Amino acid sequence: MQATAELQVIPIGAGVSVREEIGRVVELLQGHGFVLETHASGTNIEGNLAEILLVVGQIHEALHHAGSVRLVSYLKLETRTDKTPTLAGKRL
Amino acid sequence: MQATAELQVIPIGAGVSVREEIGRVVELLQGHGFVLETHASGTNIEGNLAEILLVVGQIHEALHHAGSVRLVSYLKLETRTDKTPTLAGKRL
Amino acid sequence: MQATAELQVIPIGAGVSVREEIGRVVELLQGHGFVLETHASGTNIEGNLAEILLVVGQIHEALHHAGSVRLVSYLKLETRTDKTPTLAGKRL
Amino acid sequence: MQATAELQVIPIGAGVSVREEIGRVVELLQGHGFVLETHASGTNIEGNLAEILLVVGQIHEALHHAGSVRLVSYLKLETRTDKTPTLAGKRL
Repeated sequence: MQATAELQVIPIGAGVSVREEIGRVVELLQGHGFVLETHASGTNIEGNLAEILLVVGQIHEALHHAGSVRLVSYLKLETRTDKTPTLAGKRL
Repeated sequence: MQATAELQVIPIGAGVSVREEIGRVVELLQGHGFVLETHASGTNIEGNLAEILLVVGQIHEALHHAGSVRLVSYLKLETRTDKTPTLAGKRL
Repeated sequence: MQATAELQVIPIGAGVSVREEIGRVVELLQGHGFVLETHASGTNIEGNLAEILLVVGQIHEALHHAGSVRLVSYLKLETRTDKTPTLAGKRL
Repeated sequence: MQATAELQVIPIGAGVSVREEIGRVVELLQGHGFVLETHASGTNIEGNLAEILLVVGQIHEALHHAGSVRLVSYLKLETRTDKTPTLAGKRL
């Protein structure tokens, strides 16, 4: 089923600048056919629910492989059956 | 001190459309000198930490006064002492 | 890899009482070998990262199948490579 | 008005162990008459909405004063008008 989501990944203990890791997160979200909107508190995602969840796991694996020791992610997920959820439909 | 934040307010039990309440949240955030960016998963806020927190409380009070029975809010707060946090500085 | 997580699932528009749906979420988390701790703001989970994510997707599918029209989930995920993350290790 | 909340404070760039800061967060929450439940993903709080928000701001100020350079907090807030929200009432 389709979902909208917001993902924020925070590397802990990597120094106060985490810009490089965040750029890598966005790269890993690309190439899956998701609609993506990056903003100051995370990246909004529109796509298949199971695929979004699969990619979130891959992001943790990839960032650890690249050297991150500790990661915290915040994922908001929204699904609904009365209509197809889209990022465009959630904007005011 | 200055902070960046993200606020998402969800009325529960008000029906599946919550557009009216979300519009009211954004109105209540305006008029405080905050930098605001509304997106599909909430509103990003840049401003004084204590004032952001005060307004979040006022939003709950105002929405209940307008008839909401149950509210859940998700607030992310970021502060730092090495530089002034801004929404612009958090974008990639 | 192993992860610790916190899941909160909120049915929107189902009335102000969501106790039945929350009970179903906990049932669906059982039977996977996860360590589970249910508290007032969600359920803490310790287990395999990929399996936790898979089950979160299954929970959305199952609750919609049981009649929920709109669902919002909040998932916190923590992983680390310096030691195996456990719920017990995160308590003070 | 009364509220239930969950607070998680994460110091970024302070090393992978953040136990000392988390202990300080709990200390700062004590002494306000809040009902508190500390668990693996944060601290659940029951108390006056405005006072909870005030103390969250004081926690950021105090941790920065004690040396934290960058802090991210996640605060869930729940309020309702049909009955007094309590942590006990939210447990299954």
